[in-house]
Amino acid sequence: MIALTPIGRVRSPLADPARAPKQGFEGAPEAWLELEPACADALSGLQAGQEILVLTWLHRADRETLRVHPRDDPRAPLAGVFATRSADRPNPIGIHRVRILEIAGGPRLRVADLEAIDGTPVLDLKPVLDRTRER
Amino acid sequence: MIALTPIGRVRSPLADPARAPKQGFEGAPEAWLELEPACADALSGLQAGQEILVLTWLHRADRETLRVHPRDDPRAPLAGVFATRSADRPNPIGIHRVRILEIAGGPRLRVADLEAIDGTPVLDLKPVLDRTRER
Repeated sequence: MIALTPIGRVRSPLADPARAPKQGFEGAPEAWLELEPACADALSGLQAGQEILVLTWLHRADRETLRVHPRDDPRAPLAGVFATRSADRPNPIGIHRVRILEIAGGPRLRVADLEAIDGTPVLDLKPVLDRTRER
Repeated sequence: MIALTPIGRVRSPLADPARAPKQGFEGAPEAWLELEPACADALSGLQAGQEILVLTWLHRADRETLRVHPRDDPRAPLAGVFATRSADRPNPIGIHRVRILEIAGGPRLRVADLEAIDGTPVLDLKPVLDRTRER
């Protein structure tokens, strides 16, 4: 078994997963990432203006679901969850590409745009790589 | 605490993390993803030729490391692990963009190019989204 330790939480005006945008670029708001104080050293080198990937634990997801109607559209044919970005999947890890707007004490990062709901555990932050073909 | 359940394992000629390429596009080989039989339904809709993100658990990583010399270059100034793609980080989740070459029984997926070493647990598969700004 593999145990994850959240490095922080999302603070967002989004509270209801059913009403949140499906992707950050689909009208998601700004949010704060409130990180554990112990993580402060791990942030050095990150700067406002930079794009990063935020990995989250989609804690409201159903881990038993293997097939879904993509984008919750009942007219769409059922597809395997690995062929979709559904939150429901065996290990519901979210990947969100956001821009850092501000780095504040705490530490806290203000980012845009993030579709994760308030309280979502944050697992990791990674820089976006330069190469066009990358994440 | 959050518990992950691997959906499979990487089978690769790469055995030594120190000798593996740092990114897939840096000369990594083809590999097989051997998935749990229970996951077969979750693959429906994936096709050979398609690009996906493979999420892995970098099981040899050091989870206590908060700052590293980027790309293991001792001349590079120390940077926070969240500002790098170092495997060493609190939750060592790898993101690998690969192309599916073949989907076989088991189920197994042959993919290229993958820098993860043999035996690496696989956590999730996601389609690459269409929008240019995405992962």
